Amino acid sequence: MSKAPSTLQTVSTPAVLIDLDIARRNIDRFQAYADAHGLKVRPHIKTHKLPAVAEMQLRAGAIGVTCQKVSEAEAMIAASPEIRDVLITYNILGAEKLRHLAALARKVTLSVVADNETVIDGLSDAFAAEPAPLQVLVECNTGADRCGVPTPEAAASLAQRIAKAPGLVFGGLMTYPPANDAAAVESFMNRAKAFIEAAGIKVPVITSGGTPSMMEAAKAPVTTEYRPGTYVYNDRSLVTRGACTWDDCALTVLATVVSVPAANRAIIDAGSKALTSDLLGLSGYGHVLGRSDITIDQLSEEHGRLVSEGPIDLKVGDRLRIVPNHACVVTNLVDAVNIVEQGEISALWPVVARGRIV
Amino acid sequence: MSKAPSTLQTVSTPAVLIDLDIARRNIDRFQAYADAHGLKVRPHIKTHKLPAVAEMQLRAGAIGVTCQKVSEAEAMIAASPEIRDVLITYNILGAEKLRHLAALARKVTLSVVADNETVIDGLSDAFAAEPAPLQVLVECNTGADRCGVPTPEAAASLAQRIAKAPGLVFGGLMTYPPANDAAAVESFMNRAKAFIEAAGIKVPVITSGGTPSMMEAAKAPVTTEYRPGTYVYNDRSLVTRGACTWDDCALTVLATVVSVPAANRAIIDAGSKALTSDLLGLSGYGHVLGRSDITIDQLSEEHGRLVSEGPIDLKVGDRLRIVPNHACVVTNLVDAVNIVEQGEISALWPVVARGRIV
Repeated sequence: MSKAPSTLQTVSTPAVLIDLDIARRNIDRFQAYADAHGLKVRPHIKTHKLPAVAEMQLRAGAIGVTCQKVSEAEAMIAASPEIRDVLITYNILGAEKLRHLAALARKVTLSVVADNETVIDGLSDAFAAEPAPLQVLVECNTGADRCGVPTPEAAASLAQRIAKAPGLVFGGLMTYPPANDAAAVESFMNRAKAFIEAAGIKVPVITSGGTPSMMEAAKAPVTTEYRPGTYVYNDRSLVTRGACTWDDCALTVLATVVSVPAANRAIIDAGSKALTSDLLGLSGYGHVLGRSDITIDQLSEEHGRLVSEGPIDLKVGDRLRIVPNHACVVTNLVDAVNIVEQGEISALWPVVARGRIV
Repeated sequence: MSKAPSTLQTVSTPAVLIDLDIARRNIDRFQAYADAHGLKVRPHIKTHKLPAVAEMQLRAGAIGVTCQKVSEAEAMIAASPEIRDVLITYNILGAEKLRHLAALARKVTLSVVADNETVIDGLSDAFAAEPAPLQVLVECNTGADRCGVPTPEAAASLAQRIAKAPGLVFGGLMTYPPANDAAAVESFMNRAKAFIEAAGIKVPVITSGGTPSMMEAAKAPVTTEYRPGTYVYNDRSLVTRGACTWDDCALTVLATVVSVPAANRAIIDAGSKALTSDLLGLSGYGHVLGRSDITIDQLSEEHGRLVSEGPIDLKVGDRLRIVPNHACVVTNLVDAVNIVEQGEISALWPVVARGRIV
């Protein structure tokens, strides 16, 4: 309800808090790693959807940003004059989205991906009459089994189709890698690159991503750039994987105990609308900072249920800070986040690219 | 991106569709059941968050609506002159929320619940100087083990505290019942009512809720009113429980196939941002209408992965309609929904009470 900055004691809950000091440290840490290994950084903005945080990433050394949707890219570009190089890692289809994409391409350096001919042909139709061609990278399946061509040969075939298509230029290769398998990326990309170069086409960019594997990105030296997203905030899934500690978690949800109906049970005012029901393979829906004895075992939309093995020792009105399982999806649930600096709320920032569904 | 009505073939995807003809039928069906059993209906608006659908429910015979938050009630009341009786089934705490609650109470007939003394005392402080007292019901735990006093004796004790508190009047008893256990509700409520009446206090309302058990509501005849929410849309969880059929599902997500990277795998442009990661005890993330051979086995934010046992027989660009696991949480993810009447999109309605976090 509040639109003005409040304190951690007075802000209405549930409230999403972003500790900007921690976020800065997280940004700098990966940028230093990438710089040391000659890797360019193109952070994925899906995690924060905040122009000011994208600017922090660019000022730290990122070469541009990654978005997952045309609509998210539009929102970010409109809000920040510093965002001028955007990769949209998505198969873009449909007349309306293609119109918006073409309009964006007239404003900034834009590239997209494709893993099939239908998408390439649609992009070509939309860009054939545009003043400048669109860069299209081929998305490759290096083991995550989501999108992506299945083989290096298929990647080379699509690269050639892009290179010949009116309105398009071949921009390189892109993958969302399997966790902790840089070898798979290295092998697939080297073979695809060789096939494509053998056809007389240059491969200017090979881009990989994902926070879980980011500190091993250099183990796939064929990669030229990397697209981490969650690293800026971190979350319970990353702590559980050993990628960071609780002290590295910049996004927390502040919640209030609204009921203590049993000695080992308490109810907070943060449910799936604030914490999300994303499990990411974990059990429970978040970590209560300072209370590793508590499990958040059940969420409804507006309630979170906390259970403890011993007495829960909470009273109605107590405030708790929770690290959610998955930070990115929390960002998308709220219209604004409370910025924390030096341990206190300093501002309320609108989540500019939230809720871009189409 | 589109703000104007489109057709099912042209609307940008993912798009949330609300079939208003089905919703009307669902509303009428439960109203008829309730009327036949002398039960008042107070639908929970969390499922739709749409003033026009609340008005459909009221015109069908509902006595008022249920909201889970002060902020949702504010949004609904501001948008519809027909919403004039609201029960907020939540322990409301905190100075700012109480100020908003008091302001609302001057506009409409308002009641809230409490399951502990801290909440009652806060409500009393906020309403002691108001022109009219606030009705407060005691929330009872009849087996769902979320909020609620644990025993009928405890309910009676809080009822007396409310009855004595400046600015408050005792409004009755409320529960969110365990699934398919009307007997538990009947037993708890009859005992609580007897204790309270023995203390000389009337129990004007006994309210239960929940779509899964709604067609057995009359098996707890102590209940005076019922608060179904999801029944207006239904969803995969309710079909799986046998509460309805696919033809009763008013909310669907229209998605486009963006990649068919393997013979038995396809990727759609609806991920957890459109379908939610709510499992509600199910496996998979939704039902593809007409394709019971397909499982949506994985969601990331913008991608849903479809797998089939045999060939998936889909091509890039195909459109699919999906019944999500949990309709209510989908509503909260989108700024607007596409209204479908007589099989085609007729309007785009803003989800007025979406994203009310605090």
